[in-house]
Amino acid sequence: MLTPPSYPLTHNVLRLRRLGIDTHQEAVVYMREDCDVCRSEGLDSLAQVHLTHNGRTITATLHHVTSDILAHNEAGLSDAAWVSLGARDGDPVTVRHAPPLDSFGYVRAKTFGRRLEENEFRAIVADVATQHYADVHLASFITACANHHLDRGEMASLTRAMIDAGERLDWGRSPIMDKHSIGGLPGNRTSPIVVSIVAACGLTMPKTSSRAITSPAGTADTMETLTRVDLDLPAIRRVVEQEGGCIVWGGAVRLSPADDVLIRVERILDLDAEGQLVASVLSKKAAAGATHLILDLPVGPTAKVRTRADADELAGHLLAVAASLGIEARTLMSDGTQPVGHGIGPALEARDVLAVLKNAPGAPGSLRERAISVAAAVLELGGAAPAGAGERVARAAIDDGRAWRKFKAICEAQGGLRAPPVALHTHPVLSDRAGRVTAIDSRRISRVAKLAGAPDDKAAGVDMHTALGQSVEKGQPLFTLHAESPGQIAYALGYVAAWPEIIRVESL
Amino acid sequence: MLTPPSYPLTHNVLRLRRLGIDTHQEAVVYMREDCDVCRSEGLDSLAQVHLTHNGRTITATLHHVTSDILAHNEAGLSDAAWVSLGARDGDPVTVRHAPPLDSFGYVRAKTFGRRLEENEFRAIVADVATQHYADVHLASFITACANHHLDRGEMASLTRAMIDAGERLDWGRSPIMDKHSIGGLPGNRTSPIVVSIVAACGLTMPKTSSRAITSPAGTADTMETLTRVDLDLPAIRRVVEQEGGCIVWGGAVRLSPADDVLIRVERILDLDAEGQLVASVLSKKAAAGATHLILDLPVGPTAKVRTRADADELAGHLLAVAASLGIEARTLMSDGTQPVGHGIGPALEARDVLAVLKNAPGAPGSLRERAISVAAAVLELGGAAPAGAGERVARAAIDDGRAWRKFKAICEAQGGLRAPPVALHTHPVLSDRAGRVTAIDSRRISRVAKLAGAPDDKAAGVDMHTALGQSVEKGQPLFTLHAESPGQIAYALGYVAAWPEIIRVESL
Repeated sequence: MLTPPSYPLTHNVLRLRRLGIDTHQEAVVYMREDCDVCRSEGLDSLAQVHLTHNGRTITATLHHVTSDILAHNEAGLSDAAWVSLGARDGDPVTVRHAPPLDSFGYVRAKTFGRRLEENEFRAIVADVATQHYADVHLASFITACANHHLDRGEMASLTRAMIDAGERLDWGRSPIMDKHSIGGLPGNRTSPIVVSIVAACGLTMPKTSSRAITSPAGTADTMETLTRVDLDLPAIRRVVEQEGGCIVWGGAVRLSPADDVLIRVERILDLDAEGQLVASVLSKKAAAGATHLILDLPVGPTAKVRTRADADELAGHLLAVAASLGIEARTLMSDGTQPVGHGIGPALEARDVLAVLKNAPGAPGSLRERAISVAAAVLELGGAAPAGAGERVARAAIDDGRAWRKFKAICEAQGGLRAPPVALHTHPVLSDRAGRVTAIDSRRISRVAKLAGAPDDKAAGVDMHTALGQSVEKGQPLFTLHAESPGQIAYALGYVAAWPEIIRVESL
Repeated sequence: MLTPPSYPLTHNVLRLRRLGIDTHQEAVVYMREDCDVCRSEGLDSLAQVHLTHNGRTITATLHHVTSDILAHNEAGLSDAAWVSLGARDGDPVTVRHAPPLDSFGYVRAKTFGRRLEENEFRAIVADVATQHYADVHLASFITACANHHLDRGEMASLTRAMIDAGERLDWGRSPIMDKHSIGGLPGNRTSPIVVSIVAACGLTMPKTSSRAITSPAGTADTMETLTRVDLDLPAIRRVVEQEGGCIVWGGAVRLSPADDVLIRVERILDLDAEGQLVASVLSKKAAAGATHLILDLPVGPTAKVRTRADADELAGHLLAVAASLGIEARTLMSDGTQPVGHGIGPALEARDVLAVLKNAPGAPGSLRERAISVAAAVLELGGAAPAGAGERVARAAIDDGRAWRKFKAICEAQGGLRAPPVALHTHPVLSDRAGRVTAIDSRRISRVAKLAGAPDDKAAGVDMHTALGQSVEKGQPLFTLHAESPGQIAYALGYVAAWPEIIRVESL
C-alpha cells in the first residue's frame, strides 16, 4: 500500500504558562478548546499529546479549557509537566498527537491471560519509566499483573526490565549488604537500626528505601523526618565510603524509576501484588548494587503475608528471582500478628527508632528485638559474625552505643540530624470495657494512620498504648491519633467508629 | 472500643467558580493548596472529596492550585462537576473527605481471583453509577473482570446489578423486539435499517443504542448525524407508540447508567472483555424492556470475535444470562472477515444507511444483505414471518419503499431528518501495485478511522473503495481518509505508513 507524501504538519507552537495546578506526577497540559492547535490537530480533551520544548519531549494528558484562564496562544502546564520539561514562562512548546501506545497491546494480552516475553516487559517498562502511560493505563497494567498472573520467569523478566530502565550502582567490591521487610506490619521500622548495627560492625550497607506504597510510612518517609534522604549518586557514594552505610530515598537517583511511577498508582488502588512486589523489591536492590540480601517476611492474619504457606510461596519467588540476578539472598519469617513498636507514621516511628538506638527508658522492646534479629542475619550472611553468633554481636553494638554513634555519623554525613516533628492535634481512643487485648487488626490500624494524614503529613499517625495479651481498664486509652488538622482527626475517628473491632478487648 | 464524642467539623464552605476545564465525565474540583479547607481538612492533591451543594453530593478528585487563578475562598469545578452539581457562579459548596470507598475492596478481591457475590457487584455498580469511582478505580475494575475472570453466575449478577442501578422501561406488552451486533466489524451499521423493516412489518422495536466503545462509530453516533437521539423517556414512548420503533441513544435515559461510566474508560484502554460485554449488552436490552432479542456475532480473524469456538462460547454466555433475565434470545453467526458497507465513521455510515433504505444506485450490497438477514431473524422470532420466510418478507419491505418511509417517519418523530455532515479534508491512500485484495485488517482500519477523528468528529473516518477478492491497478485508491483537520489526516497517514499491510494486495 502506498502512502502519498506526508501531509504538511501545521506549526503547532504555543507559549508555555505555569498554570499552577498540582496533579502529582501525572503530566497535564491545558489548552483552549478553540486554540489553533486543538482545531488543526483535532485534539480532544483527555487526548494523549507529545510536548516538545528545548529538545525534550514528554507525554501529557490534554484538558481542554473553555474559559479565559488561558490566552489563545498559550498552553498551561501542571506543576509536574512544568518540572519535567524544564519550562519557563513564555517558552515555546510544540504540541502533537502522541503516537499510539503500542506497548499497551502487551498489557491487553496480559489482561487476557497471555504469558509475556522479556522484550514485551521491556517495551512496557520503558514507556512506564518515561511516563508515557496515563494513570488509567498504569492501573490496568498493575491489575493485570496482580495475583498469580505472572509466573516466575515473567517476574524475572519484569525485574530485569525494571533494573535496566534506570541507573545501576556498582560498588566495585563484595559483599554489599541489604535487607528488606515485606510491608504490611505497621511500625516495623528496623532498617535505620539494622544499617547502624551492620555498618558499626564493619560491613558495607548502602540502604536505599522507598516511600510508603500502601502503608502509613516507608523508611524514606521516616528518615526524612530525621535527616536529608534525597541524595544524588556522588553524595551517596561519599556517605557510604565514609561511614559504611547510608539510609536514603532511592527515588532521587533513578534506581528502577518505573517502580516509582507504578507505586504511585498502587497507592491509590491500595494494591501491591506478588509479581509486582517481587519485581519492585529486587529491581531496587539489584540497581543499588546489593550482592547479599536478607528478606524479612512478617506473617500474620492482618499482615501483607497472611499464612505460612503464602510466605513460603513468596519466599520461593523472591529467592529464585534473586538467584537469577546473582544476588545471594536468605529469607527470615517473623511474627506479624500485631504492630511493632509504638508509633505508626513517619515521625512517630522515627521517635521509636531514636529511643531504641539510644537505649532510652521506654524504648519499644518489640522494635529492638526485631532489629537485632534482622541485623544478626545480615551479619552472619556477610561473614561479620559466625553462624549462631549474629544476635550476640548485634545486641552488643546497640548496648555499648556503637550503633547510636554510627547512626548519628550517617545522619551528619547525609546532611545533619534533626528532631522529628510533633503533630498539632492529638486525640485518644479509649477502651469501652475492662478486659484483655485479644486481637489487633494491623490493616485497619494502618488505615486509621493514613486517614489521619500519614505518610504525607510526617507527624500524623497512630501511637499505640497496648499490645496483644495486655489487660486494660475501662476508659484507658488504647491508642492516640496524631494529625495536622481537626478535619483529619474527625475523618480517622469516623473510621474508628465504623470498625470498633480494630482492637478487640475481651472481658475477663 | 469507645469513640469519644465526634470532633467538631469545621465549616468547610467555599464559593463555586466554573473554571472552564473540560475533563470529560471525571469530576474534578480545583482548590488552593493554601485555602482554609485544604489546610483544616488536610486535603492532598488527588484526594477524593465529597462536594455538597443544594442538597446534592458528588465525588470529585481534588487538584491543588498553587497560583492565583483562584481566590482563597473559591473552589473551581471542571465542566462535568459543574453540570452534575447544578452549580451557579458564587454558590456555596461544602467540601469533605469522601468516605473510604468500601466497595473497592471487592474489586481488590476480584483482582486476587475471588468469585464475587451479587451483593458485592451491587455495591460496586452503585458506586460506579453514582460516579464515586475515579478513573484509576474504573480501569482496575475493568481489567480485573476481563477475560475468563467472571463465571456465568457472576456475569448474571453483574448484569442484574447494572439493570437495577438505573431506570427500566416497561412497555406493558410482548413481544418487544431488539437486536445487537457484537462490535468489531467496521461499517456494520444494520440497526437503523433493521428497525425500519421490523416496525414497517408491524412489530414493536424500541431500539436504544450506545455510542462507540472501541469502534469508530456506534449506532447512536451514526444516527445523531441524521436526527436527534437524546430523547427522554416520554419522548421515546411517544415515538414508539406512534411508529412502532425508535433509534435513540440509551445514555440520555439512565438505562444501565454504570455501563456508560465504564464504557468511557474501556474506550481509553481499548478493552471490552467478555464478562463486561455480556453485562453491558444485556443490561441495556433488559432495561429497555426487550422480551425478544437477536444477537448478531460477526466472526473473523480481525473482528472482535476471532473464531467460531470463541463465538460459540460467547453465545453460550449471552443466551444463558439472557434466559436468566427472562429474555428470549437467538444468536446469528455471520461473516466477519472484512468491513461492511463503504463508510467507516458516523456520517459515512449514515450515508450508506440512507443509500440502502432508498435503494439508491451504488448502495453497498454487503450492508443491505446483512440488514436483511438480521431483520429476517427478528421477524421470525417475533412471529411476523413464518420460519424460513423472514428473508423474503424483509427484502420486500426494502424493495417496495416501506422501510424507507418508516425510517423517515421515525426520524421525523424524533425531531426531523437531516443530511449527514461532510468532512473538510479528504486524502486518498493508493495501491502501490497491481494485484488482488487478499486480506483486510478490520482492527487497523478502525484504528485509522479513529486516528482521523471518528467518532468524536462525526464526518471523520475511512471510505473504503475495495473489498476482499477484488482486483486493483497500481495507483488505484484503496480508501480515502476523511477528517476535520490536516493534523488528523497526517496522524492517520503516519499510522498507515507504519502498517502497510492494513490492506494486503498480492500481485497476480
